[in-house]
Amino acid sequence: MSAEAATGEAWEDITPDAARRLVVAAVQAFAERGYHATTTRDIAGRAGMSPAALYIHYKTKEELLYQISRVGHLRSLAMLGEARDGEGGAADRLASAVRAFVRWHAEHHTTGRVVQYELGALAPDHYAEIVVLRRQSEDAIRTIIADGVAAGDFDVPEVSGTTLAVLSLCIDVARWFNPAGRRTPDEVGALYADLVLRMVGAGRR
Amino acid sequence: MSAEAATGEAWEDITPDAARRLVVAAVQAFAERGYHATTTRDIAGRAGMSPAALYIHYKTKEELLYQISRVGHLRSLAMLGEARDGEGGAADRLASAVRAFVRWHAEHHTTGRVVQYELGALAPDHYAEIVVLRRQSEDAIRTIIADGVAAGDFDVPEVSGTTLAVLSLCIDVARWFNPAGRRTPDEVGALYADLVLRMVGAGRR
Repeated sequence: MSAEAATGEAWEDITPDAARRLVVAAVQAFAERGYHATTTRDIAGRAGMSPAALYIHYKTKEELLYQISRVGHLRSLAMLGEARDGEGGAADRLASAVRAFVRWHAEHHTTGRVVQYELGALAPDHYAEIVVLRRQSEDAIRTIIADGVAAGDFDVPEVSGTTLAVLSLCIDVARWFNPAGRRTPDEVGALYADLVLRMVGAGRR
Repeated sequence: MSAEAATGEAWEDITPDAARRLVVAAVQAFAERGYHATTTRDIAGRAGMSPAALYIHYKTKEELLYQISRVGHLRSLAMLGEARDGEGGAADRLASAVRAFVRWHAEHHTTGRVVQYELGALAPDHYAEIVVLRRQSEDAIRTIIADGVAAGDFDVPEVSGTTLAVLSLCIDVARWFNPAGRRTPDEVGALYADLVLRMVGAGRR
């Protein structure tokens, strides 16, 4: 699989082409060696560019990490917000959110690992911005669960702890998912949607 | 908090004292900078020792990672095996396993992250040995769930996928747990035990 295929189509909106190639190379390098062990020279080399050419697009290694983190978090927020605002009852919307979020973390597991494990390497202002996006994603799931409780469809021990557990279960797919394994992203998404509906007590009443 | 307190009492069995101090220093360094960005000189420095003194105990950086991974995985296996072989029905044993496994990942979240995220940096023979321990841990949970299904106490869509989800939920506590946060390790353990019993359909029948 090419480096680009392995990190998926998450970067299609990044232009010009050279900037996108640098992001793909950075994700691969950070995933393999960790952020701190990667140099901008490594990234430029992987993208088939010179360090000077990298510098035209990204002034620092941290700017690349920030771009990766920002795109990843915006995608997460978009899909969870879409599920929250979708048609149907809370159970349908929660299942949609889990299926989409799991599929993303399975298909983009390399990006997902970088995004989740290297948060501490972001500059303080960038970190603060990402934390806001994370809270908004959390709010989307919390809203669906609270809607279900209010409608009498769900019965949960604690809305906020359950929200945390649902997000955690989906995010951790990026850690263990193996494209050569026995389950496709869609299959994991379907299994997890079922397990999450059980967690919130959907259909118990 | 001292470096030693932060990584907890997981290393009490490692002797002599100098070897234990090196393990604690390695966990901290790997967690902060990643395995590949850490040198044996960094680790020796954090432990207040010379590189030559480190070499008496560990010939390579990878040997330190292997020691950390081995101790962490043996602890996990011991606690999950104890829960599997414990008194009571499958629901009690599954709840015990989840409470213990969650508490460990919360209390030792720094070690947990190193153990989980740096698996790929182990030498092939060490990696193979760790994979065996991971399969045995997985088997402990799978056995409890299968026991519950056989006894008619649990109703699960798929034993093996549910086992994976239960382990994943517990392991990911190491990623998000914050000792300054609103929940204690015991509180997360209790919440998660409840959520997992819902996942397996305990008490539905």
